[in-house]
Amino acid sequence: MTDEFAMHSVLVDLGQRSYPIYIGDGLLGQTDLLRRHIAGKQVAIVSNEVVAPLYLAAVMRALDGLQVDVFTLPDGEQHKNLDSYGALMDFLMSNRHNRSTTLIALGGGVVGDITGFVAATFQRGVNFIQIPTTLLAQVDSSVGGKTAVNHPSGKNMIGAFYQPRCVVADTSVLVSLGQREFQAGLAETLKYGIIVDAQFFAWLEASANALMTRDAATLAEAIQRSCEIKADVVARDETETGVRAILNFGHTFGHALEALTSYRTLLHGEAVAIGMVMAADLSARQGWLSTSAAQSIKRAVGAFGLPVAPPPVTAEAMLRVMGMDKKVVDGTLRLVLARGIGEVVVTEEIDLSALGETLTAGDNLCNG
Amino acid sequence: MTDEFAMHSVLVDLGQRSYPIYIGDGLLGQTDLLRRHIAGKQVAIVSNEVVAPLYLAAVMRALDGLQVDVFTLPDGEQHKNLDSYGALMDFLMSNRHNRSTTLIALGGGVVGDITGFVAATFQRGVNFIQIPTTLLAQVDSSVGGKTAVNHPSGKNMIGAFYQPRCVVADTSVLVSLGQREFQAGLAETLKYGIIVDAQFFAWLEASANALMTRDAATLAEAIQRSCEIKADVVARDETETGVRAILNFGHTFGHALEALTSYRTLLHGEAVAIGMVMAADLSARQGWLSTSAAQSIKRAVGAFGLPVAPPPVTAEAMLRVMGMDKKVVDGTLRLVLARGIGEVVVTEEIDLSALGETLTAGDNLCNG
Repeated sequence: MTDEFAMHSVLVDLGQRSYPIYIGDGLLGQTDLLRRHIAGKQVAIVSNEVVAPLYLAAVMRALDGLQVDVFTLPDGEQHKNLDSYGALMDFLMSNRHNRSTTLIALGGGVVGDITGFVAATFQRGVNFIQIPTTLLAQVDSSVGGKTAVNHPSGKNMIGAFYQPRCVVADTSVLVSLGQREFQAGLAETLKYGIIVDAQFFAWLEASANALMTRDAATLAEAIQRSCEIKADVVARDETETGVRAILNFGHTFGHALEALTSYRTLLHGEAVAIGMVMAADLSARQGWLSTSAAQSIKRAVGAFGLPVAPPPVTAEAMLRVMGMDKKVVDGTLRLVLARGIGEVVVTEEIDLSALGETLTAGDNLCNG
Repeated sequence: MTDEFAMHSVLVDLGQRSYPIYIGDGLLGQTDLLRRHIAGKQVAIVSNEVVAPLYLAAVMRALDGLQVDVFTLPDGEQHKNLDSYGALMDFLMSNRHNRSTTLIALGGGVVGDITGFVAATFQRGVNFIQIPTTLLAQVDSSVGGKTAVNHPSGKNMIGAFYQPRCVVADTSVLVSLGQREFQAGLAETLKYGIIVDAQFFAWLEASANALMTRDAATLAEAIQRSCEIKADVVARDETETGVRAILNFGHTFGHALEALTSYRTLLHGEAVAIGMVMAADLSARQGWLSTSAAQSIKRAVGAFGLPVAPPPVTAEAMLRVMGMDKKVVDGTLRLVLARGIGEVVVTEEIDLSALGETLTAGDNLCNG
């Protein structure tokens, strides 16, 4: 069957924990792809109420003959919490899943993050497969082994580093994605360009029309390059003790915006989009990035239909929430700032008055 | 200060995750020992209501100048659950602990297991130090990185493999231990002899009087040899994909007994003691172990004041609970059985009629 499909694969190189990301059109129909990564006779699929009606049947067909149990989460980030985690543990126990079971996450980042955390900690770790069904999950959250649930006081505060056995990114599922959610995924592709690859950033800007109309070939190329960059960074620093932190470009601001809007107003990718514009603005104010480069970042974010200004939140509230951010080490704020497009640094050299200006700039971000 | 104390140390050799176990009389008074394993400025001590009044002050003195927050759990295995785990996460968040914090478990196995699991998963993993205050924790649960909480349907069903930075085993704390709890710890030392070291088993039998009267030098020797054996097995198989399973000798039966008595009647070490006698009995019934060797195991367990027969539970209930045990792979029961004292095997070759006899033997276990 394989030759019917144009399939690309990217290896995440982590020694014994290495795994492939398969990218292609119609991969959900390829039963051998999933089967080769399932060792035991039990499978638990975790999905949500929006994704399950669309794609669960296709995945179930690939698992014929195994014990397959399905857990359907409600849709939304507010369910990525310890309550859902406990309910998933109850579900696995009541269906008598054992250490050789395989958990499959069929959904977006919320489903992937919580399922991964359950897989990391059910009986101290079981097999895990990611089938990301949003662009954001395909280019970001399904790759790299970060799993988590949220705490009421902070996003992703409870979790583990735990790698899947494989990631199956079927580009055909992206056609069913809502426009806002699709655009939110594009924010992360832009991030990869900004942090390490100016050429990819330029290609993304030039390909904005093709991407916004979801041209299949252009999308596959964007996903593949994004996964390559992420896989490379993760392979160099699996548990984020160093370089991996550059993947958080825009995220400290973004997480604070999400927290201050109770994770309900902004999609994660939208918050990151605004966060990247804020990080670019601060980088420019500190004299590290040219105003024109900061403006190109803002322009590219806007070209992908993403917000370029924060919702009305106060600077004080932002600072307070950022003080609790995971990226704070012993009370010192650490941010990822840009030195140029394709070059970022993790730094504690934050000019607090410039930061104050960034936090109050509103619509005027990156205007020099 | 170091030369005031006779200190032994055992290295758990796990590459980048290697760590020392310090064993000695009066180690809690040695402030430098803890300080050298604390990187940041925040410490959270987790203890329980029995241990904290005895030893918290000594540990606090060693941490002068740091932000130290203390969480005191109620005493008992029934609190090793997701509710306590969530409460600990709330505690860390409300005290604004960050990724560079260090968690210290000051207590027995329950405190160590839950604190380790919190350390493994708070912000995807923070520093962790074990100060075990029971014999069982010093020779077993604090070493090797198994962390967990219980699920209502099974013990240690939710957890992670996560190694501490060091283990500080102060033998002077053992004088305050209740007699039952002290004896429960001796059960695990016997286990190490049975699984890999006939000479150690013989030494333990010969030293029963000195151990039961808590002679400091004899105890230190027993703890050190136990830690050496456990460290060696763990270094060969950190995540229990193979040889590490031999450490579960007696544990499949023991866990079932604990579950069927709702974790309230038997201490873990007592359940393991009975489980070892049952495993010896089954090994003998299958013709793998001589009746005399099975009887020496039973005799040694009895000499340490431990129970040698199960409480009244039915064979049906035991089989049902054992069917959900983590050591079951795809529905096949896997047990650790003895081929001789100092030699055990992980096996699926279980004679079900012999197993039935073991489960109904009651007081007659190991009587041939």
